[in-house]
Amino acid sequence: MPVPDKKGLKIVDVNVKDVRFPTSLGGHGSDAVHTDPDYSCAYVTITTENGKQGYGMTFTCGRGTEIIVFTIRSMKRFVLGKNAAEIFSDFAGFWRAITNDTQMRWIGPEKGVAHLAVAAIINSLWDLWSRLENKPLWRLLADMEPEDLVSTIDFRYITDVITPEEAIQLLKNKRSGKDERIKLLLDQGYPSYTTQVGWLGYSDELLKELCDKYLKLGFNHFKVKVGRNFDDDYRRCSAVRKYIGEDKVLMVDANQAWTVSEAIEWMKKLAPLRPVWIEEPTSPDDILGHAEISKALAPYGIGVATGEMCANRVMFKQFLQSGGMQYCQIDSARIGGVNEILSVYFMAEKLKVKVCPHAGGVGLCEMVQHLQFWDFASVSGTMEDRLIEYVDQQHEHFYDPCIVENARYFAPKAPGYSTHFLPETLEKYTYPNGTEWQRMIKEGLFPQPDETELLNA
Amino acid sequence: MPVPDKKGLKIVDVNVKDVRFPTSLGGHGSDAVHTDPDYSCAYVTITTENGKQGYGMTFTCGRGTEIIVFTIRSMKRFVLGKNAAEIFSDFAGFWRAITNDTQMRWIGPEKGVAHLAVAAIINSLWDLWSRLENKPLWRLLADMEPEDLVSTIDFRYITDVITPEEAIQLLKNKRSGKDERIKLLLDQGYPSYTTQVGWLGYSDELLKELCDKYLKLGFNHFKVKVGRNFDDDYRRCSAVRKYIGEDKVLMVDANQAWTVSEAIEWMKKLAPLRPVWIEEPTSPDDILGHAEISKALAPYGIGVATGEMCANRVMFKQFLQSGGMQYCQIDSARIGGVNEILSVYFMAEKLKVKVCPHAGGVGLCEMVQHLQFWDFASVSGTMEDRLIEYVDQQHEHFYDPCIVENARYFAPKAPGYSTHFLPETLEKYTYPNGTEWQRMIKEGLFPQPDETELLNA
Repeated sequence: MPVPDKKGLKIVDVNVKDVRFPTSLGGHGSDAVHTDPDYSCAYVTITTENGKQGYGMTFTCGRGTEIIVFTIRSMKRFVLGKNAAEIFSDFAGFWRAITNDTQMRWIGPEKGVAHLAVAAIINSLWDLWSRLENKPLWRLLADMEPEDLVSTIDFRYITDVITPEEAIQLLKNKRSGKDERIKLLLDQGYPSYTTQVGWLGYSDELLKELCDKYLKLGFNHFKVKVGRNFDDDYRRCSAVRKYIGEDKVLMVDANQAWTVSEAIEWMKKLAPLRPVWIEEPTSPDDILGHAEISKALAPYGIGVATGEMCANRVMFKQFLQSGGMQYCQIDSARIGGVNEILSVYFMAEKLKVKVCPHAGGVGLCEMVQHLQFWDFASVSGTMEDRLIEYVDQQHEHFYDPCIVENARYFAPKAPGYSTHFLPETLEKYTYPNGTEWQRMIKEGLFPQPDETELLNA
Repeated sequence: MPVPDKKGLKIVDVNVKDVRFPTSLGGHGSDAVHTDPDYSCAYVTITTENGKQGYGMTFTCGRGTEIIVFTIRSMKRFVLGKNAAEIFSDFAGFWRAITNDTQMRWIGPEKGVAHLAVAAIINSLWDLWSRLENKPLWRLLADMEPEDLVSTIDFRYITDVITPEEAIQLLKNKRSGKDERIKLLLDQGYPSYTTQVGWLGYSDELLKELCDKYLKLGFNHFKVKVGRNFDDDYRRCSAVRKYIGEDKVLMVDANQAWTVSEAIEWMKKLAPLRPVWIEEPTSPDDILGHAEISKALAPYGIGVATGEMCANRVMFKQFLQSGGMQYCQIDSARIGGVNEILSVYFMAEKLKVKVCPHAGGVGLCEMVQHLQFWDFASVSGTMEDRLIEYVDQQHEHFYDPCIVENARYFAPKAPGYSTHFLPETLEKYTYPNGTEWQRMIKEGLFPQPDETELLNA
């Protein structure tokens, strides 16, 4: 595995910050289950002996970010003092060590808090590697030899669907035409859809205004939140269908609001409005439930989309095996970081399920574009019926924000994984001591922080 | 719902301690995946205005306990200042609030660290309630009216298998004979099995010694660890089969060591030794994998047992629905505490799967006996092919340790959920400042605690 020279790459510092944005004040981002989110992240900076840095994150929703931050601090022991080049040369081994430490795995394994903390650390390492190679992450991935890329993945528990040899073969199958596809990405970008036209409770006027706005911006795909009240859902979906016209694509998202039978009944009644998918109809853990919903809705032309809260590759494997997922919504900040996400792309390709990544939040659009660009260049080789979610929030905080024009993500060009925060963002939004948080707490817009929220400060 | 009078029951303190026992020094408790466990727990004490206390815990494995402790501290906000009687009067509502807070659920939902922390808090509340009623937990549960007991459960996402009305009916079906079954429990206790004869790497001499010991103690059921090396497994299982004789029952436990196909092949080769179950053959998240293994091994008379790392009721539901689990090993310290575990018992009863609880660790034997006693009294009404795991470690630390004689658990009689630690245990084993830990760290038996391990001290 060709990795950077190890000289100077000993990791001498792992810093983690609790960064929160007061998005609950605007009511944006609310859905049937998450009614007052403050989009947040646990933000990791690793520094090597020679002063190189990598930046990584996992997305969170306000309260509880302090738990991820604390967990990352507890996991420093796996990284500090290690040489980054040695980590890269046996990345799957390192990944196994940090996700399956014999004492730590009891509190997971490979799910929830522990796995989110792993994701932030792993993402910071890939960012570092990309910077050392002076490439955006998607180019680093696309340029790696198939054997080298596949060697970064831990295939434990998924070889019944895909083996390392098969993954290597999938990459080799797509060697032909790769350069042309990379050129296409650089020239024309990758299509996206918008989630910003139909949050719960929006009035007809606002819906019209937003549909007009996003139509003018060139969008052809529009996602509407559903699941709290059928009449309100029907009203908003009908309005959006009317405003976007019959030739555009509508998707709906229930954010886990329903039981299996509720999902089926509710969606049958929305079917005349021709949504192409129902996203997160029920519990993100209910593989068999999703399979049942998929089967019931297939005759109506409605697919099931899920994945943003899918815990790990073993859960993804089963959603893909069981027919419970027609659109695979990998999330760049969940599961155990880039290495594990790559394995999900390979399983989806093998089982012929389309990957349409989840984004929004903080840094998710920035990260996930790299993964989907790599998929087009090296794995699926197609954009057919594939889209990246787009929400235009929180991009202004990054050195290298994603660029979406005419409803297409344009290729990230700067080295890294695009999640390096600007210094003024950290100064303002680090919780609870950032200047904006101090102001908002003082003005009574937010409560005083709890004991544990103060502990990481 | 008849609950204690609310006077004086405002919760004024929630204390949480990191308690660890140096079990790695003896090498006991090691398995194919967890090679150096220090049996530990996050230990919660809640105190009401009138000085009543409830004690609850979740089991952990050494490192990482500090993460659970920190998470419980972060979750204090859900409990502190609430009135315990009001919590009990809408226990399902309280449970939904603490497991599905709109900002916190992103870091779960209902799994891993966050759910383990919930379990410790919820268990402390049930302990308090039992103490207020002056009953051991199993009697509190057995004495509750069906409607009242079922009202404590959140049925979200499981109504496709069981509804509240069906659960009430299951309890009513077993009203007849309940008094006789309670008398039987009080007179004769509940059968158990031992896990202590066959840890990995034990020599033939030690195996013989241990089999003799546990045969003399009256055990008829013996569990052996497998999964790291087939030849060693075959040697130890053959030896145990020889020493216990053909009429006794052998079970084996792989602690998630295998892929699906490895599990099937390995177990076919162990089949001549007649193990009645293979426990945790593969990833605890692989429902479809367990179903495939179950199907392949059924002709050999081998069932699949799992559950100790099953994340929540939605995962249990699918293991039960899919035929992936012939023995349901609920764990008293995992999933979201008593309320959620009750729902698993109801699903298992409905789908006719035997519950054989996981125990061992710290406090697990103490807690789980209550649940299984209740099951016999009120739900399944039978002990046929049902057993509680037993490991004789760490019982001496409790005021009300479980009592196992002639391989039977005897009925807990003291009020509560049996997990109240003796003061000297806390003085010695609270990590890292307990006197025993200070001594062991000073003597170099254990490393200095990390930054995060110190933070909770």
